[in-house]
Amino acid sequence: RIDGDRLWNSLMELGKIGGTAKGGVCRLALTDLDKEGRDLVTSWAKAEGMSVVVDQIGNIFMRRAGRNNALPPVMTGSHIDTQPTGGKFDGNYGVLSGIEVIRTLNQHNIQTEAPIEVAVWTNEEGSRFVPVMMGSGVFCGAFTLEHAYNATDIDGKKVRDELERIGYIGEQTCGDHPIGAYYEAHIEQGPVLENADTVIGVVPAVLGLSWYDCTVTGFESHAGPTPMEIRKDALQVSTYIMQEVVAIANRYPPYGRGTVGQVQVMPNSRNVIPGQVKFSIDLRNVSDETLNKMHEDLVAYLEAMRQKTGLAIELERVSYFPPCPFHPDCVGNVRDAAAQLGYKTMDVVSGAGHDAIYAARLAPAGMIFVPCKDGVSHNEIEDAQPAHLEAGCNVLLQAMLASAGV
Amino acid sequence: RIDGDRLWNSLMELGKIGGTAKGGVCRLALTDLDKEGRDLVTSWAKAEGMSVVVDQIGNIFMRRAGRNNALPPVMTGSHIDTQPTGGKFDGNYGVLSGIEVIRTLNQHNIQTEAPIEVAVWTNEEGSRFVPVMMGSGVFCGAFTLEHAYNATDIDGKKVRDELERIGYIGEQTCGDHPIGAYYEAHIEQGPVLENADTVIGVVPAVLGLSWYDCTVTGFESHAGPTPMEIRKDALQVSTYIMQEVVAIANRYPPYGRGTVGQVQVMPNSRNVIPGQVKFSIDLRNVSDETLNKMHEDLVAYLEAMRQKTGLAIELERVSYFPPCPFHPDCVGNVRDAAAQLGYKTMDVVSGAGHDAIYAARLAPAGMIFVPCKDGVSHNEIEDAQPAHLEAGCNVLLQAMLASAGV
Ligand SMILES: NC(=O)NCCC(=O)O
Ligand SMILES: NC(=O)NCCC(=O)O
Repeated sequence: RIDGDRLWNSLMELGKIGGTAKGGVCRLALTDLDKEGRDLVTSWAKAEGMSVVVDQIGNIFMRRAGRNNALPPVMTGSHIDTQPTGGKFDGNYGVLSGIEVIRTLNQHNIQTEAPIEVAVWTNEEGSRFVPVMMGSGVFCGAFTLEHAYNATDIDGKKVRDELERIGYIGEQTCGDHPIGAYYEAHIEQGPVLENADTVIGVVPAVLGLSWYDCTVTGFESHAGPTPMEIRKDALQVSTYIMQEVVAIANRYPPYGRGTVGQVQVMPNSRNVIPGQVKFSIDLRNVSDETLNKMHEDLVAYLEAMRQKTGLAIELERVSYFPPCPFHPDCVGNVRDAAAQLGYKTMDVVSGAGHDAIYAARLAPAGMIFVPCKDGVSHNEIEDAQPAHLEAGCNVLLQAMLASAGV
Repeated sequence: RIDGDRLWNSLMELGKIGGTAKGGVCRLALTDLDKEGRDLVTSWAKAEGMSVVVDQIGNIFMRRAGRNNALPPVMTGSHIDTQPTGGKFDGNYGVLSGIEVIRTLNQHNIQTEAPIEVAVWTNEEGSRFVPVMMGSGVFCGAFTLEHAYNATDIDGKKVRDELERIGYIGEQTCGDHPIGAYYEAHIEQGPVLENADTVIGVVPAVLGLSWYDCTVTGFESHAGPTPMEIRKDALQVSTYIMQEVVAIANRYPPYGRGTVGQVQVMPNSRNVIPGQVKFSIDLRNVSDETLNKMHEDLVAYLEAMRQKTGLAIELERVSYFPPCPFHPDCVGNVRDAAAQLGYKTMDVVSGAGHDAIYAARLAPAGMIFVPCKDGVSHNEIEDAQPAHLEAGCNVLLQAMLASAGV
């Protein structure tokens, strides 16, 4: 069994880097704070005698040798980048659970047959740079290193330059790194487990996701003298599209999700009718069929709006992954480990994307969810109970041992 | 008669300061570029032998003595701050027409009975700082110097500090400066004159204006796992309010105007349901009665939305001036001057606010409009014809002489 206090203390220590007044964390990908976090985590790994390798997109692999090092490692991991108003647990819990598994094995002098690795994936959140889940995506070949390097943040800074700046552009070719099996522990980020008073969520699948940039171009002019009937107000047209995003999600329950999270209005002046508005669209669903239908509904609506308003409306897809079922072996190992440890479990489909879905393209993969307070995540008040975090980490340990062999 | 080429050349020279690639100007109030523009205009005034005084809010008064300097000056003026994507004529035309009037009087050695002054009012646009028409507003006592000094831009910089930084915080007490009559020449900023193929607009009145900040507070959470039905999406609620702003304007034609020009989404991340959205509302109309009704409709709608959504919705009025009729004497002088000069005229109500409406609280005031291309203003492609600008300046000269006495 793992040491719940030790895990909690590490979470609190890492949470100080980028810690906010409201108890959350703002540690955007590839900032100085991200570097500080990476330095701390790798120093802990080295203290446990692990070797550390960084690949070209900045993914970190921390390895504890096994008895048979020709075997591909059993891997766990997650990310330590956060949302602008993020919490201490999202991602961080998965990485530090991996460190805690290693500390426990070292403490009890347990050797595994296969080596064990803990991964820190680069830019999972997708908040500063898209595509989302960038490190694991390049690793599994979902998109190219080139594409990721050229991603820019809102200030025009590039991933490649920022990686170099913080000293985390490694030598290892992305993906040149076998995996035997992959597990990831994570807070649920939704309300299902808490509402059902259940400690462990077994994750059968992750919702597929489509991200877009939508740009509406009207004509900027003066808010006073310009009569209502001759305006080409890019924001007014955008509001109808924003409402349709939610309507589309509601059309495909129970897993349909539709969100507009980011908006830029040009020129953003009180007395100027907006000439251009750019905003993000996030659509999700559990099956290829429903996600495709949502996509088609969006495309059709935009065409109708083009006809109706005469304004230019552009739609660019900037991230995509299909719904991802996990491997029965790993799902089974998680379920068995939880049962064996006496924890109450239930199946919870993940509404959030995780690095595990890209790892799942290369090896059997599975996830372990624990409840978070009020189902809230991507919020500074994100919270979780030490006992739940401990339980999830125990399940991770046992599931990994089942895959790695003792 | 004034010299149209000289006026045009001055407009082009001032337009270089903050000039944009698209031929517009970005010279926000109290920036380094604003200082550069002020320095240039005052250097021109000094070259004409004018005295220059700056008051505590940074208004500049450039004076040409009259025969009887005990008389209050006949004043003209406008502003040289611009929108972020503004043009070369809005405001600048009014100031440089004043300079051109002086140059013409000097050239022809004409003495006036009353002194003549040209004013450059601080922060008319209201784009960087509210209240709008700040300099003339403080000057006439519409709000206090204190209130204006404490206004902050989006980065938290204060008017007082910025005035000090650019060296335009003067000694003269605001308003301690009599005015005999006030005229302002301006591009129409709307399509009426151009559509009627008319050179001179006589301005009987200016629409009243109400500006608000509206803040909708929901609850930020994760765009993936959070089910649609439990969301408190501040942006979705905001979109309905934004549409209502336009609906309210359409309810009170023909002068009703409703615009949302500025939007800030928090935390503005693709996969976070917006927790808070702050946006501007601009309502205008021609009578106290209709403008008040628009205000009441807005207040009622927000209350209904509070009830319906349970979200916190705050409304703060940040600028206000009532509809403003101009003085019959000045309106008459403008009409007579145009007729005498042989220009085609028509009455045009101003949809934009102008410093003249605050000057009108202290002295008889009037305005002269000239057409602008396609009625477009607050846009980098704002344009006007040299012949029209010349005509407007000739009318200004004659109207001022009528008030000042030769
Ligand atoms: N787990 C998590 O918050 N991932 C970010 C990507 C997403 O939006 O699903
Ligand atoms: N003339 C002008 O553009 N004034 C700015 C204030 C307004 O929005 O009416």
